[in-house]
Amino acid sequence: MQNIVQRLLDGDRRALARMITLIESEVPAAHRYLAELHRHAGRAHIIGVTGAPGAGKSTLVTQFVRELRHRQHKVGVVAIDPSSPFTGGALLGDRIRMMELAGDPNVFIRSMASRGSPGGLASSTGDVIRAMGAAGFDPIIIETVGTGQAEVEVMHSAHTVVVVCAPGMGDEIQAIKAGILEIADIFVVSKADKPGADQAAAQLSMLLSLDPNRRKGPWRIPILKTSALKNQGIVEVVDAMRQHLAVLKESGLLAQRAQRQVRSEVQALVLHAVMHALKRRVSEDEWNALIEAITTGERDPYSVARELLEHMGLQMEQT
Amino acid sequence: MQNIVQRLLDGDRRALARMITLIESEVPAAHRYLAELHRHAGRAHIIGVTGAPGAGKSTLVTQFVRELRHRQHKVGVVAIDPSSPFTGGALLGDRIRMMELAGDPNVFIRSMASRGSPGGLASSTGDVIRAMGAAGFDPIIIETVGTGQAEVEVMHSAHTVVVVCAPGMGDEIQAIKAGILEIADIFVVSKADKPGADQAAAQLSMLLSLDPNRRKGPWRIPILKTSALKNQGIVEVVDAMRQHLAVLKESGLLAQRAQRQVRSEVQALVLHAVMHALKRRVSEDEWNALIEAITTGERDPYSVARELLEHMGLQMEQT
Repeated sequence: MQNIVQRLLDGDRRALARMITLIESEVPAAHRYLAELHRHAGRAHIIGVTGAPGAGKSTLVTQFVRELRHRQHKVGVVAIDPSSPFTGGALLGDRIRMMELAGDPNVFIRSMASRGSPGGLASSTGDVIRAMGAAGFDPIIIETVGTGQAEVEVMHSAHTVVVVCAPGMGDEIQAIKAGILEIADIFVVSKADKPGADQAAAQLSMLLSLDPNRRKGPWRIPILKTSALKNQGIVEVVDAMRQHLAVLKESGLLAQRAQRQVRSEVQALVLHAVMHALKRRVSEDEWNALIEAITTGERDPYSVARELLEHMGLQMEQT
Repeated sequence: MQNIVQRLLDGDRRALARMITLIESEVPAAHRYLAELHRHAGRAHIIGVTGAPGAGKSTLVTQFVRELRHRQHKVGVVAIDPSSPFTGGALLGDRIRMMELAGDPNVFIRSMASRGSPGGLASSTGDVIRAMGAAGFDPIIIETVGTGQAEVEVMHSAHTVVVVCAPGMGDEIQAIKAGILEIADIFVVSKADKPGADQAAAQLSMLLSLDPNRRKGPWRIPILKTSALKNQGIVEVVDAMRQHLAVLKESGLLAQRAQRQVRSEVQALVLHAVMHALKRRVSEDEWNALIEAITTGERDPYSVARELLEHMGLQMEQT
């Protein structure tokens, strides 16, 4: 039983893969193992990479990993896959390109489905990061499509958030979930060999100047251009990631972020446990009877919620 | 105290406005009033209108309201405003156009900020719909920008979801949160006087044909074109909304949706109460001590979460 924890700490890839499967299947034992791993989880640099579909995120991540390997880092990648029938297929193609890295023992890539509640995804991503960190991977890159609240929440666990925009997608910048733009630490204009790259960079620069909060703090958000075709700009983005980490450390912001992160993780674990308790204590027949009573107007949802809380031993606020 | 409930049931606009303010400020008394209103909340047709920024949603909603007034309906509108500095300004301009309707005593318009947790927004939108319904408004239109998880959750409380796309925004269709496309009941191609409207309609038609689940059920999703400039297509969309409601009623799907909605509302109320209880029982000093212990590796988040649950009287699952 302890075996998996020890093997994972020794850097055994199969133990890590198994642990991630336990996390995804929400096996109760996973939390016991993760509690033990927590002490050893280390201080991996968590890098979030996000942007609209088609911005070239997966290609960029592949190049970041290559550059980081060149610098002797052991790199982890968590790719969040939206499991929608509308976008699933296209993304899968990009991900296949990333697979060329899979033969390297110092690279660990894992895809996770983004089904389920936003909180649930953020929570299991946090667990996967903890397991990868304990196995010695640093940095760990999280890649998401930046359009959903779930993805925004996942990005909150990153130290450094890279937002990718492609030229000619001017309106796409508007379409990216606003919350993502607000947490960007580095902007990348990808496909800079295409026309419109300078225009996209100018547009991002204007967006930054619109936000007065940007001027606070010690970090100036860079807007960098990359070209996968010409293999340009990658070194500069990886340099910027490392510089951002250094600024976070020096300014004390890293410690602050870690504390906020810990707090929201504990809250998510509490809410998750309450949902489980609710499922366990209220049978389907009981639910149906309650819902029927609410639908007919005989009961109301507020008093039913209060009753369920009392049934679980919790008292609702005095009103 | 009871006064506000009675006045609201009598259709007093100021009582309704006051109730919505109570809901938004999360005053505990609001739930007591809403519990009483629940019985009278009636069966208003809830219509969701969503789409990417710039698709012309607010203009369309204004025209829907005019057409519904023409048909003697008393119409409520809840406009969810993303409070991001990046998009807030542009949307505000659109909303001002909607204000021309505000002089009509049989139209009630209210904006709500989309800050806060996705669950929180869905829950307070549900409360606002309940209050508007009790005051006699039917249908009630909810307008959101379809890019965030919060907005997707809000759309789940609608009976009829209208997704708006503008021509020449082909890629925007991809950028709309996939979850929104999946719950669309009616597609509208707005600005049909512009070139590319037929192409946008064809693209939507293709997206629909890709999704095998679409073929189930008694409703065929129409793709309708509107032009605000030429004042065309509005009657057809409003007809389609009413037809959709009729199909939902006949097929028994309306009752099913209502039951699902009630269940998720009760769950959201439970989780909300747990978050409140947590805030009340754990002081800032206690939080800071716990977070410090977790950060140093002395404690782990899993055992801390378990301890907090026990402190609130809840036992976590046996693991």
